[in-house]
Amino acid sequence: MTAILLLSCPDKKGLVATISNFILENNWNIINLDEHVATDEKMFFIRVEWEIPENDFKKEVINLKFEPLAEKINATWQIKFSNDKTRMAIFVSKYDHALQDILWRHKINELNTEIVAIISNHKDLEELTKIYNIPFHHFPINKETKIFQERKEIELLKSLDVNVIVLARYMQILSDNFVTQFPNKIINIHHSFLPAFIGSNPYKQAFERGVKMIGATSHFVTNNLDEGPIIAQDIIKISHRDSVKDLIRKGRDLERIVLANALHYFLEHRVLTYKGKTVVFE
Amino acid sequence: MTAILLLSCPDKKGLVATISNFILENNWNIINLDEHVATDEKMFFIRVEWEIPENDFKKEVINLKFEPLAEKINATWQIKFSNDKTRMAIFVSKYDHALQDILWRHKINELNTEIVAIISNHKDLEELTKIYNIPFHHFPINKETKIFQERKEIELLKSLDVNVIVLARYMQILSDNFVTQFPNKIINIHHSFLPAFIGSNPYKQAFERGVKMIGATSHFVTNNLDEGPIIAQDIIKISHRDSVKDLIRKGRDLERIVLANALHYFLEHRVLTYKGKTVVFE
Amino acid sequence: MTAILLLSCPDKKGLVATISNFILENNWNIINLDEHVATDEKMFFIRVEWEIPENDFKKEVINLKFEPLAEKINATWQIKFSNDKTRMAIFVSKYDHALQDILWRHKINELNTEIVAIISNHKDLEELTKIYNIPFHHFPINKETKIFQERKEIELLKSLDVNVIVLARYMQILSDNFVTQFPNKIINIHHSFLPAFIGSNPYKQAFERGVKMIGATSHFVTNNLDEGPIIAQDIIKISHRDSVKDLIRKGRDLERIVLANALHYFLEHRVLTYKGKTVVFE
Amino acid sequence: MTAILLLSCPDKKGLVATISNFILENNWNIINLDEHVATDEKMFFIRVEWEIPENDFKKEVINLKFEPLAEKINATWQIKFSNDKTRMAIFVSKYDHALQDILWRHKINELNTEIVAIISNHKDLEELTKIYNIPFHHFPINKETKIFQERKEIELLKSLDVNVIVLARYMQILSDNFVTQFPNKIINIHHSFLPAFIGSNPYKQAFERGVKMIGATSHFVTNNLDEGPIIAQDIIKISHRDSVKDLIRKGRDLERIVLANALHYFLEHRVLTYKGKTVVFE
Repeated sequence: MTAILLLSCPDKKGLVATISNFILENNWNIINLDEHVATDEKMFFIRVEWEIPENDFKKEVINLKFEPLAEKINATWQIKFSNDKTRMAIFVSKYDHALQDILWRHKINELNTEIVAIISNHKDLEELTKIYNIPFHHFPINKETKIFQERKEIELLKSLDVNVIVLARYMQILSDNFVTQFPNKIINIHHSFLPAFIGSNPYKQAFERGVKMIGATSHFVTNNLDEGPIIAQDIIKISHRDSVKDLIRKGRDLERIVLANALHYFLEHRVLTYKGKTVVFE
Repeated sequence: MTAILLLSCPDKKGLVATISNFILENNWNIINLDEHVATDEKMFFIRVEWEIPENDFKKEVINLKFEPLAEKINATWQIKFSNDKTRMAIFVSKYDHALQDILWRHKINELNTEIVAIISNHKDLEELTKIYNIPFHHFPINKETKIFQERKEIELLKSLDVNVIVLARYMQILSDNFVTQFPNKIINIHHSFLPAFIGSNPYKQAFERGVKMIGATSHFVTNNLDEGPIIAQDIIKISHRDSVKDLIRKGRDLERIVLANALHYFLEHRVLTYKGKTVVFE
Repeated sequence: MTAILLLSCPDKKGLVATISNFILENNWNIINLDEHVATDEKMFFIRVEWEIPENDFKKEVINLKFEPLAEKINATWQIKFSNDKTRMAIFVSKYDHALQDILWRHKINELNTEIVAIISNHKDLEELTKIYNIPFHHFPINKETKIFQERKEIELLKSLDVNVIVLARYMQILSDNFVTQFPNKIINIHHSFLPAFIGSNPYKQAFERGVKMIGATSHFVTNNLDEGPIIAQDIIKISHRDSVKDLIRKGRDLERIVLANALHYFLEHRVLTYKGKTVVFE
Repeated sequence: MTAILLLSCPDKKGLVATISNFILENNWNIINLDEHVATDEKMFFIRVEWEIPENDFKKEVINLKFEPLAEKINATWQIKFSNDKTRMAIFVSKYDHALQDILWRHKINELNTEIVAIISNHKDLEELTKIYNIPFHHFPINKETKIFQERKEIELLKSLDVNVIVLARYMQILSDNFVTQFPNKIINIHHSFLPAFIGSNPYKQAFERGVKMIGATSHFVTNNLDEGPIIAQDIIKISHRDSVKDLIRKGRDLERIVLANALHYFLEHRVLTYKGKTVVFE
């Protein structure tokens, strides 16, 4: 088993020594350490992973033990164990490729997560969720019901103790109220190389602009549409031969890969945010 | 020697037959043919390359011979020979990497062009042009002199019979009047994946947005800044470790490669434009 | 509906004219034409796609009509219609990712094919094929039974009129006799950038060599292991942080994409072979 | 100014603590730390960069101070300062692109190095070295003179206190004796994605195999041809349209970029070797 500390704080001398001494004092061995200082912002970011014997009684109280130290350096932090599974909810509408891909990866144990709910404003993908035995919740949404339905969704998510919400091509814009409840916990996949082609129909926008590549971007959702911190991004080349339909087809592969990369980073506790950007310790 | 026809016209039946029969009637052999129909626009695009013996007297009159046919199908077209060198002028300011790269490629005969002038609003790169023996022209520009200096530049370019103008990180915005004189003949390199980060300081914009890749785009210049038809585009991955300075360094390589690709396509007569987009027969 | 001609023959003057005149004489309109001459080999390759009205009686006899022309130019050729579905069989062993991906693409109509059989030497993936309603055939194989079982497989494939056989991580080496029955019809996915890391355990080989990227290659199967004509190939970057297990995980995505690309090209009649290589009209 | 420690040793508990405490005790601030444990080999690798005031007298004796600590953990290590310039010699033959590129990067201060000698078995590139004011040494080599000339080269390199030797498309194979003098200090650029296409004419080999991509690999030179530890590697896509000449042209860009990346990593003290592989802290 390993423990993973993910921490950010104002930079100052001795931070690595402080943290590594803490680990040494507990007689643990670091197997991975990645650190970054944003020198312009004087901010310190670190991810440390170390081995802990399964039967080490200290792991029960590790958070309590680390807290005073974290407070002294004014840190935002978390410690997770490699056998903890992050609890995930997935929001979808009608497109199945992103959902299908996550479910398949989950099934072959590629993603260290427990998928506790699939939530949709449509019924189209219910059947798919049955194959994988994941509870499906239908919340139809229109202008009138939106606020009410979101409130029920939030209740459900909180009751399920959800730690990450994936928008797998969910075609509704979440309200500010919803987003505010889950800061840095909602991950979206947008089918363009943001900040290009914000908003709807990015493939059509790309076709009309005549770009020579299309992209996909996975990012945290904030209250500004498609402007949250970017976690992962990639592109593929296209040409004049590609119709909008071709872009949609080619883009599906890209969306799946980019979203999966972002989820890997998140679920392995590799992502920190600061000032609208991410630090991703790959 | 080869001849290269580059042609676009409204689509209709028999266009390939018409063109290939013309070539066959002259007893020539096609070695490359690439065709595209934009079905939504009902437009036909073609590039054909065929062998012509050096001493074939018909090549002198090939344009005359092809003209009636082209008129009948309402075509925009050109026929060039592989040993014609396109006459190029390069505009630069202070950055040398794009210029340096073009000059080196030209020297090793990678680019089928004759560079007839290097024009700059600064004197910084004059020395470099001397190494490669290319005439350097200094046109300092400020708000007051801009229109006047541009007029002199246009005169020079016309007197030199220039067929392509490359903006190799030229830091002035050309006036509408200037651009209008050289439609689809001015090629710019912009250091972002357009349409993201239009305008100045795209690397700084990219750093601040926290994107996970930076790009470069080579495009024809039109009267809308950074909105002309895109010829070539590429990206490289970056991370939180990269400062703006790192982006500038990494981007230099990208700019050089993307601009070189666009010039290859143009100088080998592979680029057609239509409705603000390009057809590039790679 | 469209018709697609895929043809290769010795190069000579007038080939494009001959073919395009044939299409024009039948009053059809070309919408796509891509041509290549291998000048060193003096070989001509072409793919032409043209519109044919559904009710055009000439399409019934198009092969008969084209035959004399093809004979005159000594061509290897085929004409297919866009609504013909190529009949596919898939061979698998225990890994499900490549199979899963093809079945999903098939279900959303991304691949223009009818999957008529899934054949395996193991029973592990039978359940998956049931979800997608594809007949599953179990042919357990060991040294003694191999020749006999292959004979039964060949019979089955011929009785099903199979036109393409996909080895979706099939862990048996097909006998020369088997391969000879289906020239240029067996498509394999190999998990390395061939010709590097031929044979078994390419990810382990890659790890041990310390390469900075891993690849996948889709190719036609011939009687020389991993040496058939390459249809599609791609790589992703890796680092010292990646264990063999990481390579396997990252490689799965690559294998899926590269195999899908190869299948797209094949099923859209874009692939010609010559001298152990392919011409792929993308 | 910063100091950079690059260190590898057998893994054990407390290594990060030991090193970070050393830095803290000297009142310095870490700005970059990257660590890797090869768990199968139980080896520890680290790169740490920290700020040191220019006038800090302790920097004069930093190696002496660190030595006992390094000895205790049985480490292979070096400490360099950011304003130390690594002394480089470049070996070339007739191709200029790799040399040209390094010289240009050096001139614009992209590479933290002092180029102290350019050595060639031909005179073709002497002129180019004059433009950049770098001493050029001509050592013509044939079967008879090889050992003798190499001895003179080694003498020269030692007298110049050279710390890295770059083979920028040097067309001679260095003798085992030569290579043994400069372990992990000779960096080569090979124009293929190794281990594919070892040896001469890799572009021709690639053309003949019909691969869909070509590559370049920068690696340390050992006594086994093209088998040394790989530092950097990349590929570009090609197609059936590309002749060997096209591959050479396209490959030039790739070689330049891949070699430059490898040099960046080396000159920024980011490369460790172990068991025929590299750890590159990007």
